[in-house]
Amino acid sequence: MSVAKEPTTEKLFGHRLREAMRRNESLVCVGLDPDLEKMPEEFRGVGVREAIVRFNRAIVEATRDVVCAYKPNLGFYAAYGVEGLAALAETRWLIPAEIPVILDCKVGDMDNTAERYAKGYFEEWGFDAVTANPYMGEDSVKPFLDYWDRGVIVLCKTSNPGSGDLQDVIVRDGERETFLTVAERAQRWNAEYPATVGLVVGATYPEQLARIRGVCPELPILLPGVGAQSGKLEASVAAGIDADGFGLIVSASRAVIFAGSGEDYAEKAREATLQLRETVNVVRQPRLATV
Amino acid sequence: MSVAKEPTTEKLFGHRLREAMRRNESLVCVGLDPDLEKMPEEFRGVGVREAIVRFNRAIVEATRDVVCAYKPNLGFYAAYGVEGLAALAETRWLIPAEIPVILDCKVGDMDNTAERYAKGYFEEWGFDAVTANPYMGEDSVKPFLDYWDRGVIVLCKTSNPGSGDLQDVIVRDGERETFLTVAERAQRWNAEYPATVGLVVGATYPEQLARIRGVCPELPILLPGVGAQSGKLEASVAAGIDADGFGLIVSASRAVIFAGSGEDYAEKAREATLQLRETVNVVRQPRLATV
Repeated sequence: MSVAKEPTTEKLFGHRLREAMRRNESLVCVGLDPDLEKMPEEFRGVGVREAIVRFNRAIVEATRDVVCAYKPNLGFYAAYGVEGLAALAETRWLIPAEIPVILDCKVGDMDNTAERYAKGYFEEWGFDAVTANPYMGEDSVKPFLDYWDRGVIVLCKTSNPGSGDLQDVIVRDGERETFLTVAERAQRWNAEYPATVGLVVGATYPEQLARIRGVCPELPILLPGVGAQSGKLEASVAAGIDADGFGLIVSASRAVIFAGSGEDYAEKAREATLQLRETVNVVRQPRLATV
Repeated sequence: MSVAKEPTTEKLFGHRLREAMRRNESLVCVGLDPDLEKMPEEFRGVGVREAIVRFNRAIVEATRDVVCAYKPNLGFYAAYGVEGLAALAETRWLIPAEIPVILDCKVGDMDNTAERYAKGYFEEWGFDAVTANPYMGEDSVKPFLDYWDRGVIVLCKTSNPGSGDLQDVIVRDGERETFLTVAERAQRWNAEYPATVGLVVGATYPEQLARIRGVCPELPILLPGVGAQSGKLEASVAAGIDADGFGLIVSASRAVIFAGSGEDYAEKAREATLQLRETVNVVRQPRLATV
């Protein structure tokens, strides 16, 4: 089922992620979400595929020693049709092997369809992890969980204003929110299945994040949509890091890749990444010191 | 925002769907879910893209006068990488303009990302409707709902065994299941937003379907995963059709497109479609007679 033949600790997604965090002293994940209209002048008039790949390559080269992961979001590539998706395929292989790449695709479908997605995104496209939507239940996530060397990062409490519509609904039995049901489920999947299971929790909800971390002390948590300036960032990092000061994937997209709009966009992206890394590391420091 | 400039009844997704149902006297939707391993001998050794497009073309030509819609599922194309997705783009334009094409992609993401998906799937790829996952809430669906001439078919009670994990959870306030919360939400979206809103309800749950139809008397309901032989098909059709005997998109994939495995696969697909159409129409007959 899995590409890699023999399970070894070194190849587990959770292990590889932590190694990248340690090596680059960073919990920062850069979201590679291209938008031709926001790219600098020099990308005007270039073909879609070439523009995206060239832009992403510059961003990766400028940040690869200061991030723990990259996260392209499928929607920003699908927007440009087949050319955009060809750029996504190429982008994946721009990234050095020692840095995990998370495909943000919020996948969730029937068992046999989910198997096709898993084969596609893990084997054909070569991503190290995917984000997954839990609405269709365990059997829709299972084909991804069967890959021992990959990661499955399940939407729990997302950062958008409408996330409460379903995620905050109080479940009658147990009197807790739906997102905590998902967190408990993910905790169990991580014990029962080979894959490394993680959770998506928005940086906009530090209190909920603290409760989720209480339920899942060791799962990696993807914190999407933070800019270097986000007011709740410190609170979220404090609430979300694990006991060792790891376990949190702090993801920024536009705030990093479009930090500059001129010729120095790659340098600006590096500066924004460094600034975010530093802000996060200041909060981590007390815990790192005790390890 | 939308491709078509002026809203007209004729261009509404709901209207176009119903016209196709009327013209072809059919509620059957064929799922174009290619699987190279299940295709007949003649497709061995052909390139991925060519094999998929040629196979889909034969299926469409054999069934286009007896269906109300086609539904390619993204996962079966993503499984084959960029070549597969190029085949998806080409497949969309094999289908006659008068038959709506639903992209089954279970999409659901943050507002700005959802906008990119909507632009991609509706404008760039040209699909008439998408399936959408409600877990992230209203703002994740809104960019799709803003397209007045398209359809947004929201996952409500899916057909898989694990669908109960979250969808059947009883909500404390109101003491009803989560899937009914989604149905009520969809009913409201259909009134408030330009797009035609529909629901996905599995044919495996006719009782739940009847309750959903009670909440949403007029929304189109996509009934996925039925084979011509499905035991609960008649019960689901009876529970799911609207007052006029329309409003149900009865979707079959493997049971139709892989009905035969030899040279006559397209004929067999047509036979399976006709058989399913007939089974459904027998149940519809009493209501059609009264219109």
